[in-house]
Amino acid sequence: MELSKIYEPVQEDLAKVEDRLRSVSEVDFPHLSEMLDYSLRSNGKRIRPILTLLSGKFYNYNLDYLLPMATAVEVMHTATLIHDDAIDKSLVRRRRATVYKVWGEDEAVLLGDYLFAEAGALTAATQNLRAIKLFAATLKAISSGELNQAFNAFNLEQSRSQYFQRVSKKTAALFSMATESGAALSQAPEESIQILIEYGSNLGIAFQIVDDILDVIGTEEEMGKPVGSDLAQGTLTLPAMLLLEHYPEDNPVKKLFQDHSRQENIGLAMELIRNSSITQECYKVASDYCARACHNLNLLPHNAARQALVDLVDYVLSRRG
Amino acid sequence: MELSKIYEPVQEDLAKVEDRLRSVSEVDFPHLSEMLDYSLRSNGKRIRPILTLLSGKFYNYNLDYLLPMATAVEVMHTATLIHDDAIDKSLVRRRRATVYKVWGEDEAVLLGDYLFAEAGALTAATQNLRAIKLFAATLKAISSGELNQAFNAFNLEQSRSQYFQRVSKKTAALFSMATESGAALSQAPEESIQILIEYGSNLGIAFQIVDDILDVIGTEEEMGKPVGSDLAQGTLTLPAMLLLEHYPEDNPVKKLFQDHSRQENIGLAMELIRNSSITQECYKVASDYCARACHNLNLLPHNAARQALVDLVDYVLSRRG
Repeated sequence: MELSKIYEPVQEDLAKVEDRLRSVSEVDFPHLSEMLDYSLRSNGKRIRPILTLLSGKFYNYNLDYLLPMATAVEVMHTATLIHDDAIDKSLVRRRRATVYKVWGEDEAVLLGDYLFAEAGALTAATQNLRAIKLFAATLKAISSGELNQAFNAFNLEQSRSQYFQRVSKKTAALFSMATESGAALSQAPEESIQILIEYGSNLGIAFQIVDDILDVIGTEEEMGKPVGSDLAQGTLTLPAMLLLEHYPEDNPVKKLFQDHSRQENIGLAMELIRNSSITQECYKVASDYCARACHNLNLLPHNAARQALVDLVDYVLSRRG
Repeated sequence: MELSKIYEPVQEDLAKVEDRLRSVSEVDFPHLSEMLDYSLRSNGKRIRPILTLLSGKFYNYNLDYLLPMATAVEVMHTATLIHDDAIDKSLVRRRRATVYKVWGEDEAVLLGDYLFAEAGALTAATQNLRAIKLFAATLKAISSGELNQAFNAFNLEQSRSQYFQRVSKKTAALFSMATESGAALSQAPEESIQILIEYGSNLGIAFQIVDDILDVIGTEEEMGKPVGSDLAQGTLTLPAMLLLEHYPEDNPVKKLFQDHSRQENIGLAMELIRNSSITQECYKVASDYCARACHNLNLLPHNAARQALVDLVDYVLSRRG
């Protein structure tokens, strides 16, 4: 199913989030304004703000709180991408030059800082202490997950449980912040908030697993950015872990991690994964997380938003970019 | 007067802030814990948390709110230093290797992000929406001030008013956040809060002017870091601006900014400034800001904290490191 079809129950309000995002770049400093406009302009999938809006649809749907929160979630996501790209020295994302490429590393770091602050200001506009504390806790989780990844670059001795812990922090934390805040800001009862946290958290893990698969089997055209980048940066993702398990002896990932310069091993590893059952195995794991995401959704009030959350799970599993 | 003497009215509570700072590094991730401990360990002057504690001394001094806030202010300051050092590729600060030098640029960016989040979490612990909104607005001001500096590197066409605007954002905003939050969290009446904002803001500008002077006339031993770094990074500070005004034709700053490679001009510029009246002129400007800082302090209740704020102004003007 197309994303625009899934987004239908909150389509009009997503347009209002886009307006809010545009207004973030209305600042009295032309250089900053240009950078903000460039980085927040609509070309992402906007899955995270959609999660906030949909999660707010079960009880008291109040845009006074949900709009700044949904905007905060997307601004925070954008800030993390800008810092990630600066750290990874990535040149292309979403078919465009990254902030790092256009303005350089220093400006990317400072723009990311500004956007974290903007996300904080938008969250504070909800006047909701739970959402505010969640914002701070989530940023701590994301940066500690990214630090964990940086410290474990080119480290072969990593367990699956370390991988899932890292993914929970660096990706799933923001997904569950999106759903938890939407639920909390619509005065959902605590049981319903917990169901939506569980949904967001598991969907986030599945989303990252699929991202890691697509970095191996996708094309640059589909992804809007170069593929094979995880291996190039020494990030051990689930497909590479399974390849190490399947071929414990002569293995291109092992060679690559032991001697960073052997770049030809990236292509060899990708080919081996593509021509094996590893992709299917990884999709099975992602699919299990998706099942967990939806497990208790039927305890929520039945409405179009609930169906959209179910459809979004299918989208995440079937997406190619 | 010695800082420890000035700090006397809140000395015991500063020790509690140090405890809180130490507890920030108690996390279940050894690498992160080590980095946190290294960067938050007591070797700064702790002026900003002192400002929060002193500003809280005039009305309802409640440590439940003031301790997390004072800690937040210092954590936020630390985060900005870590990002600044990564951006400037600075190797030494406070007589120690920077986080950038020890762990590298990527880790420095992520640790700074983590500390911004920690500062947000500590601010949220005050449960005070004014303090929380102030936190976000201050981080926006700091990063936009730093971006302004980055965009204007090696730009000779900058006015004094641009300099003061930048200093207001990159330095004074955090000083006035420290005083405003302390006042607001102690239920000070709005007139008193405004007096303390005025104090913090003007003291912050004076502090930065003195910093800029010391980067020219100080020694590495006194400063705990290399001097001449502003010119090396192409940052036009007040002493360099005055040098351009005094010698509009043949000027080492002009040569340096026009041709970055001519590093010998840094030493020439520093010597010219030292042997002229420029230092005194700059101190006069800083002194005027200090006078403005204290202008309305006598409208606050008379107590030891008020005297400490006055003494702190003298310290800022006379400090050598």
